[in-house]
Amino acid sequence: MSYRVLSSDLAEHSGAEIRLAGWVHRRRVLARVTFLIVRDRAGLAQVVVPAGVAVSPEESVVEVTGTVVANSAAPGGFEVAYKAIEVLAEAEAPPVELFRPELEAGLPALLDHAAVSLRHPSRQAVFRAGAAAVAAFRATLDGLGFTEVFTPKIVGSATESGANVFALDYFGRPAYLAQSPQFYKQTMVGVFERVYEVGPVFRAEPHDTSRHLATYTSLDAELGFIRDHRDVMEVLTRVIRAMVEATGLSGVQVPPVFPVLHFSEALERCGADPGEPDLAPEHERALGAWALEEHGSDFVYVEGYPMAKRPFYTHPQPSDPRWSNSFDLLFRGMELVTGGQRRHRYADYVTALGRDTAGLDGYLEAFRHGMPPHGGFAIGLERFLARLTGAANVRETTLFPRDLHRLAP
Amino acid sequence: MSYRVLSSDLAEHSGAEIRLAGWVHRRRVLARVTFLIVRDRAGLAQVVVPAGVAVSPEESVVEVTGTVVANSAAPGGFEVAYKAIEVLAEAEAPPVELFRPELEAGLPALLDHAAVSLRHPSRQAVFRAGAAAVAAFRATLDGLGFTEVFTPKIVGSATESGANVFALDYFGRPAYLAQSPQFYKQTMVGVFERVYEVGPVFRAEPHDTSRHLATYTSLDAELGFIRDHRDVMEVLTRVIRAMVEATGLSGVQVPPVFPVLHFSEALERCGADPGEPDLAPEHERALGAWALEEHGSDFVYVEGYPMAKRPFYTHPQPSDPRWSNSFDLLFRGMELVTGGQRRHRYADYVTALGRDTAGLDGYLEAFRHGMPPHGGFAIGLERFLARLTGAANVRETTLFPRDLHRLAP
Repeated sequence: MSYRVLSSDLAEHSGAEIRLAGWVHRRRVLARVTFLIVRDRAGLAQVVVPAGVAVSPEESVVEVTGTVVANSAAPGGFEVAYKAIEVLAEAEAPPVELFRPELEAGLPALLDHAAVSLRHPSRQAVFRAGAAAVAAFRATLDGLGFTEVFTPKIVGSATESGANVFALDYFGRPAYLAQSPQFYKQTMVGVFERVYEVGPVFRAEPHDTSRHLATYTSLDAELGFIRDHRDVMEVLTRVIRAMVEATGLSGVQVPPVFPVLHFSEALERCGADPGEPDLAPEHERALGAWALEEHGSDFVYVEGYPMAKRPFYTHPQPSDPRWSNSFDLLFRGMELVTGGQRRHRYADYVTALGRDTAGLDGYLEAFRHGMPPHGGFAIGLERFLARLTGAANVRETTLFPRDLHRLAP
Repeated sequence: MSYRVLSSDLAEHSGAEIRLAGWVHRRRVLARVTFLIVRDRAGLAQVVVPAGVAVSPEESVVEVTGTVVANSAAPGGFEVAYKAIEVLAEAEAPPVELFRPELEAGLPALLDHAAVSLRHPSRQAVFRAGAAAVAAFRATLDGLGFTEVFTPKIVGSATESGANVFALDYFGRPAYLAQSPQFYKQTMVGVFERVYEVGPVFRAEPHDTSRHLATYTSLDAELGFIRDHRDVMEVLTRVIRAMVEATGLSGVQVPPVFPVLHFSEALERCGADPGEPDLAPEHERALGAWALEEHGSDFVYVEGYPMAKRPFYTHPQPSDPRWSNSFDLLFRGMELVTGGQRRHRYADYVTALGRDTAGLDGYLEAFRHGMPPHGGFAIGLERFLARLTGAANVRETTLFPRDLHRLAP
């Protein structure tokens, strides 16, 4: 049997008889010839089939044997002159037309028929970019001495935040799906100093918006022996730069160092009331415009958010404990990543939590027995992809999204 | 401030003043000197402290400033002569003694105090080997043109196998935790041809044994355009070889090609009844011994398991459809990995499932619209680590295990 060649490699086999395998992306039956476009994992290839030879309908899976010939009009400059076609699976007409350059179906139809619509080259490209970004996340952190960990997604108490947790029946007992690996990644700093985890997180978000999902892929990192949150930001900047580069998307302004504003400066720059507890969306947009204009950066850090708006494990700003050593990273004026320095002294946790430590014994044990100054961040993969690609809805950058209404496919 | 140097890098800084940061692994107070062993993410280093200087108790987090000096009696041949110690966090006495070469606590105590017990070098080593094995799994498959995917862990129906699913309350509707990414990884073969996923799977196993967990990390791969399951086995062999090598464990017999026996041959070789539907543990042990003796291999494939014992998506053996194109990979006589070729024709699924297709619409849509011959495998990370390291209990190779009784820490 002749050797399988991918569509991208035809040029290397000019003149040879090869085997092409893939899906019937498109067939154009003319009077004297049929043009068959085969789609494989590397792209598209044109096969020239004599009139009278039956070609299976779109999305059928075929193996074509033929000779590679140069043709400047074909994609990639080469095409395959038909010798034989074997049909591996005959397909019914697809629910969305995949051969068109742009998918013409609406989002609900694309999601309902994900098994087919994801085959479109434009949809594939989004998730290939995502896989490349995750690989870059890992490679950057591996290079910095981080260890990958796998922590539990089923937890015994809904302590990280009482709201928006999914409850399940755990052998007759109540249990919950983890909203983040926060407590575990901090605990693991006590073991490996620097850890990361790529995994699902679960949020019972009762919001039906373009940016809320019930579960998404969180890229979490945490590192010990930092001076403060600025060390975390330095690692995050490296990670983001590598991830953006890996996606291959052009036009993103990603300088070696991102501008930083303190929360109080950010409010002032936006002309907001200095007592505001948070940045409004229009403030974030204004900061994004400032970063691009003044620093040529699509990214800007805001550090020092008020302690009152941050979770109990957040480390206060030593010079003024109304503020925190936490930060948001904005991309084009929208929040992309949250992170910061965490408390590390056991006594600080005791003070912060008071008597409210039910379910936190395992977590607090790490601090009781010595934890270094540490901090970290979490990147939502689907949100990152949506922001980078300019997708209007985070469901467009999720293979099989789960939300208030959607549990299938 | 002087530069932080890891314990493993002292030799490169001989004579220099450096900063060492880590945990007080052990302090030995003698009459004229105190030996302080500092543990950081790279290992252990000895610090020589003059008598009279207070040293914090074990597990406290410290930064030591001092000069690197050669001492053939010190670990690595170098030690640090004390200049100053800063205590970053003072620790209470740990619940298990971490400074001993072997942890002396029983498994329940180790698991109850995971936040501390995992700090022991022997425990760290297990999970570093695991992280290295996962990296090797990905690197091998990346090199073969696979794409990483992230598929949903919450599903709308318990269709893959009715038993042992965790049910949850999904915004007032019933939903389930995915027992495997099987249906999704097959669907994704229709998009990317070759995919892998590393993620949690959930099994409501009501068994209280040394090998059952309620959730574990599954390393899943699936590839299209195969001839049969032998192509899957070839990829798995490459993956396993890379994973074993990455763990750095010695003494594993892992030849370039693993021996293969058909299920019917395996029964015959064990002297079992040819009508047996499965291999008993003693049969598997006998096959393991045979593979080592005859082929110098700790691994052996058994292919062709009876269709009656395999899930509905299993592809039958074309020459005799009582058997299947599926396989188990045994390691030292115990099942390590299961895999096989799957059905790919829509009509075959219709026949296999009959009317029982509730909840499978999204999955079946992939086959209706053209799927290539394909197959794959799944490796349980914790089981792989347990078998490779000879751990008696899979809980020893899980950071925070979940079972019938354990939901914390």
